[in-house]
Amino acid sequence: MKNTFGQSISVTLFGESHGTEIGAVVDGLAPGIRIDEEYISYCLDLRRPYGRISTPRVEKDNFRIVSGAFEGYTTGTPLTILIPNENVKSADYSYLKDTPRPSHADYTAECKYHGFQDYRGGGHFSGRITAPLVAVGAILRYALADKGIKIATHIKKLADISDREIRVGDIDTVNEKKFAVISDSASELMQSRIEAAARDGDSVGGVLETIVAGMPVGVGEPFFDSIESVLSHLLFSIPAVKGVEFGLGFGFADMTGSVANDPFIIEGGEVKTATNNNGGINGGISNGMPMLFRCAVKPTPSIFKEQSTVSMKEMKDTSLTLCGRHDPAIIHRARAVVDAVTAIALADLLAMRYGTDYLKD
Amino acid sequence: MKNTFGQSISVTLFGESHGTEIGAVVDGLAPGIRIDEEYISYCLDLRRPYGRISTPRVEKDNFRIVSGAFEGYTTGTPLTILIPNENVKSADYSYLKDTPRPSHADYTAECKYHGFQDYRGGGHFSGRITAPLVAVGAILRYALADKGIKIATHIKKLADISDREIRVGDIDTVNEKKFAVISDSASELMQSRIEAAARDGDSVGGVLETIVAGMPVGVGEPFFDSIESVLSHLLFSIPAVKGVEFGLGFGFADMTGSVANDPFIIEGGEVKTATNNNGGINGGISNGMPMLFRCAVKPTPSIFKEQSTVSMKEMKDTSLTLCGRHDPAIIHRARAVVDAVTAIALADLLAMRYGTDYLKD
Amino acid sequence: MKNTFGQSISVTLFGESHGTEIGAVVDGLAPGIRIDEEYISYCLDLRRPYGRISTPRVEKDNFRIVSGAFEGYTTGTPLTILIPNENVKSADYSYLKDTPRPSHADYTAECKYHGFQDYRGGGHFSGRITAPLVAVGAILRYALADKGIKIATHIKKLADISDREIRVGDIDTVNEKKFAVISDSASELMQSRIEAAARDGDSVGGVLETIVAGMPVGVGEPFFDSIESVLSHLLFSIPAVKGVEFGLGFGFADMTGSVANDPFIIEGGEVKTATNNNGGINGGISNGMPMLFRCAVKPTPSIFKEQSTVSMKEMKDTSLTLCGRHDPAIIHRARAVVDAVTAIALADLLAMRYGTDYLKD
Amino acid sequence: MKNTFGQSISVTLFGESHGTEIGAVVDGLAPGIRIDEEYISYCLDLRRPYGRISTPRVEKDNFRIVSGAFEGYTTGTPLTILIPNENVKSADYSYLKDTPRPSHADYTAECKYHGFQDYRGGGHFSGRITAPLVAVGAILRYALADKGIKIATHIKKLADISDREIRVGDIDTVNEKKFAVISDSASELMQSRIEAAARDGDSVGGVLETIVAGMPVGVGEPFFDSIESVLSHLLFSIPAVKGVEFGLGFGFADMTGSVANDPFIIEGGEVKTATNNNGGINGGISNGMPMLFRCAVKPTPSIFKEQSTVSMKEMKDTSLTLCGRHDPAIIHRARAVVDAVTAIALADLLAMRYGTDYLKD
Repeated sequence: MKNTFGQSISVTLFGESHGTEIGAVVDGLAPGIRIDEEYISYCLDLRRPYGRISTPRVEKDNFRIVSGAFEGYTTGTPLTILIPNENVKSADYSYLKDTPRPSHADYTAECKYHGFQDYRGGGHFSGRITAPLVAVGAILRYALADKGIKIATHIKKLADISDREIRVGDIDTVNEKKFAVISDSASELMQSRIEAAARDGDSVGGVLETIVAGMPVGVGEPFFDSIESVLSHLLFSIPAVKGVEFGLGFGFADMTGSVANDPFIIEGGEVKTATNNNGGINGGISNGMPMLFRCAVKPTPSIFKEQSTVSMKEMKDTSLTLCGRHDPAIIHRARAVVDAVTAIALADLLAMRYGTDYLKD
Repeated sequence: MKNTFGQSISVTLFGESHGTEIGAVVDGLAPGIRIDEEYISYCLDLRRPYGRISTPRVEKDNFRIVSGAFEGYTTGTPLTILIPNENVKSADYSYLKDTPRPSHADYTAECKYHGFQDYRGGGHFSGRITAPLVAVGAILRYALADKGIKIATHIKKLADISDREIRVGDIDTVNEKKFAVISDSASELMQSRIEAAARDGDSVGGVLETIVAGMPVGVGEPFFDSIESVLSHLLFSIPAVKGVEFGLGFGFADMTGSVANDPFIIEGGEVKTATNNNGGINGGISNGMPMLFRCAVKPTPSIFKEQSTVSMKEMKDTSLTLCGRHDPAIIHRARAVVDAVTAIALADLLAMRYGTDYLKD
Repeated sequence: MKNTFGQSISVTLFGESHGTEIGAVVDGLAPGIRIDEEYISYCLDLRRPYGRISTPRVEKDNFRIVSGAFEGYTTGTPLTILIPNENVKSADYSYLKDTPRPSHADYTAECKYHGFQDYRGGGHFSGRITAPLVAVGAILRYALADKGIKIATHIKKLADISDREIRVGDIDTVNEKKFAVISDSASELMQSRIEAAARDGDSVGGVLETIVAGMPVGVGEPFFDSIESVLSHLLFSIPAVKGVEFGLGFGFADMTGSVANDPFIIEGGEVKTATNNNGGINGGISNGMPMLFRCAVKPTPSIFKEQSTVSMKEMKDTSLTLCGRHDPAIIHRARAVVDAVTAIALADLLAMRYGTDYLKD
Repeated sequence: MKNTFGQSISVTLFGESHGTEIGAVVDGLAPGIRIDEEYISYCLDLRRPYGRISTPRVEKDNFRIVSGAFEGYTTGTPLTILIPNENVKSADYSYLKDTPRPSHADYTAECKYHGFQDYRGGGHFSGRITAPLVAVGAILRYALADKGIKIATHIKKLADISDREIRVGDIDTVNEKKFAVISDSASELMQSRIEAAARDGDSVGGVLETIVAGMPVGVGEPFFDSIESVLSHLLFSIPAVKGVEFGLGFGFADMTGSVANDPFIIEGGEVKTATNNNGGINGGISNGMPMLFRCAVKPTPSIFKEQSTVSMKEMKDTSLTLCGRHDPAIIHRARAVVDAVTAIALADLLAMRYGTDYLKD
């Protein structure tokens, strides 16, 4: 339903880049989930721009929970988080209605909303709107961790620099890193590459890789609500994500079944698979192995080079050079959003299966 | 909602491989959509196994429309399609409950359904359950084509053999091919490769590529119902799909923004983009360019080689050698399912935007 | 979503009066719910016309379960029930498209479906379409009874003849009656009144009253999914229901708070209320007392007297005299439908609260 | 979905009586709907307590629209309204967790939320939470009026005092009245009755009657989304509503079909019905006649007389005498909420039928 997602636990997202506040409402939360405001702040910080590798627009994300929480715990009624837009520059953005930025949503928004959209700073399409998702995700991640379900996302690839594949043992380490790369040398190279792109007025893309440990067996549905379906639905709503793959993903294309199949084995008295090419999911349902998936993140479309575009009023070709605040990469920040929507998707599937009270403390 | 998908047009899917019938209900169809039973049969035939490259289980898919149609047109009330399971072999499948097939859903089904699942022939997880989806998709594709919206899917890659990228001009040609490959030489190589895998008791995977021409500008939603989100949700519910990418997809990871961005241009008095790296979608919303996306299809997990698995009753390692009817590849058949779910997703987004009567004849 | 209802357990209804089959799909059922086909038949029989007080169209309702059940139990995948339309008279119904029957849906259907509706015998608006609802309800009632939740509906009022208010102790007795009236004398009077209406070519309405015993405390939602909201949504989808009230309902209008309030008391070590004016629901949530509600059922609009109507083609007044098979009352049959939708609504609310497996045997 | 309602236009409601803010998010609004803040204030004022006949808790309802509106019009993205809780008394409400108020939700909330609910002032169950619904309803009523669809609700009955039935010609007059009664003498008697109840520490209930003029023919669905179903779903989520009836409603019970049926006639070149016993709805679908329905509103459960209740900690009977601010009647305020949810329900049904842009200016 457009800006509401989820069945047992549903999230409604709202706000524009230059409104007074952005926010989210979460419905269906169990009563008694602990609200750790420090952890929410920590997750929001991971999404916030920082250093030389991000936009200079730095906001403190002073979120407020205005409903659904009482004395440090969820009440079970809809929980609303508001985040003020504090650092809004009153620049003139009206040119965006005429000369749309390439690969941004300016043109499609103009067509869809007939010119009524709030075009300032990308409006509702701004990456900033993902901040409330991160806050909601933080509450759910905290609750999932209490049930032994842990999530971590690292930058698997940035431009042509690769990190190694993430393993369950990396989860805590990765979650403590601001720039989520396992290999220190890859981390430095990637940051240098972002800085180089920034100096060049350009931007870079990459691949995020996510692991989930501790997911119970038997969650997900055979058809329309396979874990892959529900997760990809949310992952593709993150601006800039243009590809999602589970387990070997596109790597399966070159393989034969005899190599690709994951043989079952008994290990520690439990059914496991010897390999995990399917990323912890068989037939759309969790099989108890770690879940593993990757998202392709395109380079930020906002660059400082002159670009070809059109004047919609005059219906003729023209060019555009952006100025202001922009990110040379958003992949290191998108990581926090991927973690968040993963938590949201899994919490919803779990609550659907085990009932509303599943995540209760 | 599990086995129901869609908001304005919703599809409910049901059935098991060895039940008497499988089927689907479509709700929210405009009244007055023409039902072309021959076209439905044609699409079902494309999904059906055939020749040496598929399983010998050949069913005629004699569908019946038992509600929602009257005198050759939809009535506007729920349309139900039933397809009998005519060629069901009464083999003993009960071993699947104890010794799950690697990379199949036998194990996860046993965990999720506590042993109550109909395990015969994969039950509700059987690829056969996609036949009603194809029938529903055929009705909607026919109606979309009347509105100038055309869909085609080809095998972009099978094992290490590639077809060229699909273009709008290929749509009709591809749709007339039983084995959907543009290049004749690639087509022959791919079919040989499948036959080789069959001889070897093995299977192969690949990549399907889909193009949509004629999609109106301004359809889709900024967040949870981006076109990418809605399409991927359905695509990932097709058994064997493990990756989905739009436009350049994972290819974006290596690019800079200055190369990846699609400049706007005026062409024929309309706003277009000079390149189409974003696959016709900006900010989750159609931009009027052809939509382009790819699905990774894993090799069929059913192979005839001996595989390692476990006995769940005895909780010890064992092995399993399948016999019976199996596909050495399903990618050439999955193509019909991808076309179908694409039609379903787009019809739903269009009906949400333009109202229930949009697809009326 | 139009013809699909429910969140954790959802029902999709389809079919037309003169199609080959009508049916329903239930999704979200726990695996392992027992399917008692005799009980389903018993409930269907209660809805079927019988004796002199109903339409002579008598069908055996030979339902078939074509998916979602295996060896006598639900599998957990979508369960589909088909009921053939066996006794379809090939009368000419096409006059209904021009001269709509007063208080029927002929006119609104023509407007909504632009003339594409299957008008034969009321098509999708026929009361017959409630038969699959009764079958689905029977499965859920059986499962709810296993959890100690019992439902019964009697005819509280027919024309000006009243039965006494139903109590928990009446549940089994009422459920064993074909004509669900507690008082034998009221029962005879009511049946005579229906026969008199039949002789007169006329019809009668009434009020159904439903009781639910054993509902756990704490089910339902404060706002949009209050128990009253969910139940009334389903009850008002039963053709002929034009009013729904809970507890005292419209009787509250004349009362003061000091008389209307239900004082809490301790009884048998549990919190109860001394009176039950609120019909077991406080703030939209079950309070553990028996649930009690009533539905107003209008007189069957099909009567044999000449009625004023219009010719839609000629846009002038005309008159219409129906012939064929009709019910002088449907309230005694609607009782089975009310029981069924009550079971569906409560099962859904319970599964949402306690998880998919709640109704497992 | 619990606190979200609607398919094409959906409303998410949040907040607690003593939180900092309450509010609502509306998704699916067409872009370009005019936001008339004065009209929103006017509607909120009608819901606010006033004079001697209401609780002395008077809040200004200084709503803020924080997203989805730009330069006086909706943008088409989610619109969020916040209303601060300004007049919150810091009384001690913790006794409510032990000694639940009769016919309030204190007991059921304690059971459902395991003690984590915000019990202050009724928390999420407070009638105050309907204020954002009224604000949302005001936006939609304004837009509907532009399309010629007008809604009005009056007090048909309060205790034993009755107003006459509302007619289309009364709509504007009623909407201009603060105390919505057509007959001046009935109005005075009703207000005196409320004042008398107030003096007595007691409360009174009544019946609200709503009329909708200008509804297009052919909106609504045969089964689960009949107009009656969708409206009653929302009406029953208003605290204190315990009965809903359409047209003659429970009055049908005493009638024969020959009297109850609404004959079709041609009037002014259009199909009409000579009577309107069905309240403008046939087969769940609007027939173009004015829609008419009534809601039973129970007397406010908060009274100042001593009442029997229990101590949940000690599990023994006790008594309770409330003090503080309470309404001797809420029916005159609930009228604004009924108007609002009627607008929400109809706008949703219209947008589903005619597409997202239907309500555009």
